[in-house]
Amino acid sequence: MFGLIPKEEKFFVMFRDMAKSIVEGAVALKDMLDNFSDPLKSKHLIKEIEHKCDLHTHDIIKKLNKSFITPFDREDIYSLAASLDDIMDIIDSATQHIIVYHIDRITPEAKELGFIILKSCQTVEKALDVLEKHPQRITDFCVEINSLENEADRVRSDAISRLFNEEKDPIRLIKWKEIYENLELVTDKCEDAANILESVVVKNA
Amino acid sequence: MFGLIPKEEKFFVMFRDMAKSIVEGAVALKDMLDNFSDPLKSKHLIKEIEHKCDLHTHDIIKKLNKSFITPFDREDIYSLAASLDDIMDIIDSATQHIIVYHIDRITPEAKELGFIILKSCQTVEKALDVLEKHPQRITDFCVEINSLENEADRVRSDAISRLFNEEKDPIRLIKWKEIYENLELVTDKCEDAANILESVVVKNA
Amino acid sequence: MFGLIPKEEKFFVMFRDMAKSIVEGAVALKDMLDNFSDPLKSKHLIKEIEHKCDLHTHDIIKKLNKSFITPFDREDIYSLAASLDDIMDIIDSATQHIIVYHIDRITPEAKELGFIILKSCQTVEKALDVLEKHPQRITDFCVEINSLENEADRVRSDAISRLFNEEKDPIRLIKWKEIYENLELVTDKCEDAANILESVVVKNA
Repeated sequence: MFGLIPKEEKFFVMFRDMAKSIVEGAVALKDMLDNFSDPLKSKHLIKEIEHKCDLHTHDIIKKLNKSFITPFDREDIYSLAASLDDIMDIIDSATQHIIVYHIDRITPEAKELGFIILKSCQTVEKALDVLEKHPQRITDFCVEINSLENEADRVRSDAISRLFNEEKDPIRLIKWKEIYENLELVTDKCEDAANILESVVVKNA
Repeated sequence: MFGLIPKEEKFFVMFRDMAKSIVEGAVALKDMLDNFSDPLKSKHLIKEIEHKCDLHTHDIIKKLNKSFITPFDREDIYSLAASLDDIMDIIDSATQHIIVYHIDRITPEAKELGFIILKSCQTVEKALDVLEKHPQRITDFCVEINSLENEADRVRSDAISRLFNEEKDPIRLIKWKEIYENLELVTDKCEDAANILESVVVKNA
Repeated sequence: MFGLIPKEEKFFVMFRDMAKSIVEGAVALKDMLDNFSDPLKSKHLIKEIEHKCDLHTHDIIKKLNKSFITPFDREDIYSLAASLDDIMDIIDSATQHIIVYHIDRITPEAKELGFIILKSCQTVEKALDVLEKHPQRITDFCVEINSLENEADRVRSDAISRLFNEEKDPIRLIKWKEIYENLELVTDKCEDAANILESVVVKNA
């Protein structure tokens, strides 16, 4: 009979596993941007991690659809899973663009964005690590994710400003503009996840 | 008194009608891309169908807001209607771009995307056709829509890669990049609809 | 004991305050586009208003998360706050682009969009002003917001069409294309807010 009681804490494990995969993805992206020795290898690795995140998301939604009782609101579980999946999707798509555009060297601003992205994903992981046992500690992580997004926004804005000032080749300009926008978008998606987490915590306070 | 009982099966008819309009739109788009004999005429036809889909969406939401009982979750009916409306909006916007950009001939990749879009919309229609009576058959259609989206993603990525390799005119490059992205986006929206459908089916299994 | 009864009408005041800030932002944007005498000053003013809207949104969500009883569906309050926040975010981001792109003079089409944006934001404010006491009057405002969005869409489409016909410098073309798209997006966000308002009214009729 006890078998019928859904192990709702499973959701927390699933979210933590997913966050771990996202951090792996962000490490691979940062490594690609820093070294740029074998971008194709990085691309394949990131695509693999992105696929793993798709499976995580699918598992969470499947479990959600089968659970009578959930540790927090069903729609918040769904939104959180979708927003985590978005983070990894954008990491993957930013990587794809760098390959498709035949970029030959990485600018300092792109490396800086890679660094901020990794910190942001690690902070999302920390927030998910405390969600089950110490939810009151989440707010601090959310504040940090917010300020990392602001930092990335500034870096991207300065980078694009410099691009329009210095780059005379419009095709290179198009490529880099999109690369910067994609990289910054990763931190936006981290902020979306943080907003959902914060609202979950306040609702269940 | 029976008149007070909402005819909830009406929703299924409304969704099927909307899917039929979307397939009409995809046929018109494919025809425009394949023949390109009278693009302005295609544009007007597609705009008309897009307007019809707006009315379908509006009707579904109006009915939703008046119904006490719905065949599946209210928010899923709303999301499904919105996601179907998105499919037709993007078909329309892709068409508008081709006209505004004064494109003179259609590339093989754009035609290929037109073909995938039509197949994807037809599969959405098939999924909606079985939603009421044979919901368990929906999963197969969703898998197909997913793999069509992957195919469109590959075609777009290869097309843009070729564009950056071959196109020396940056203005033509901008135009075609956006056309490919818009066309691929139609299959993304079909996938969004498929995800909602799949979750509805699993929830009500 | 009466202190425990949530002052739910507070939400209406908060939404009206937020709408007032958005109109301020739209006035500042229109003024910047019309005169373009001190764009940096306009940029700072708009950024400040955008920050104020972030605080409004945050306050609404905090109050939402603490309220047992809400004047209309919790998810609609959340969506409405988020959609109003989006309006101001896009006004801010459109302004930032004009600065970053070192635009030296404003085209007639951009001024026209600034005019439509202001009218659209004012209409959102009017709709929020009647939400509490005369909700049945909202539909007319929503129809107006919709037709303003159509107008903005036409202006943007014509402007981009002219851009591709006349502008030979691809870098200037990229800049202006994005500026027009950003400006039009403000009216899309007003329409999103209108759709939420309309659905709230019909649901509670």
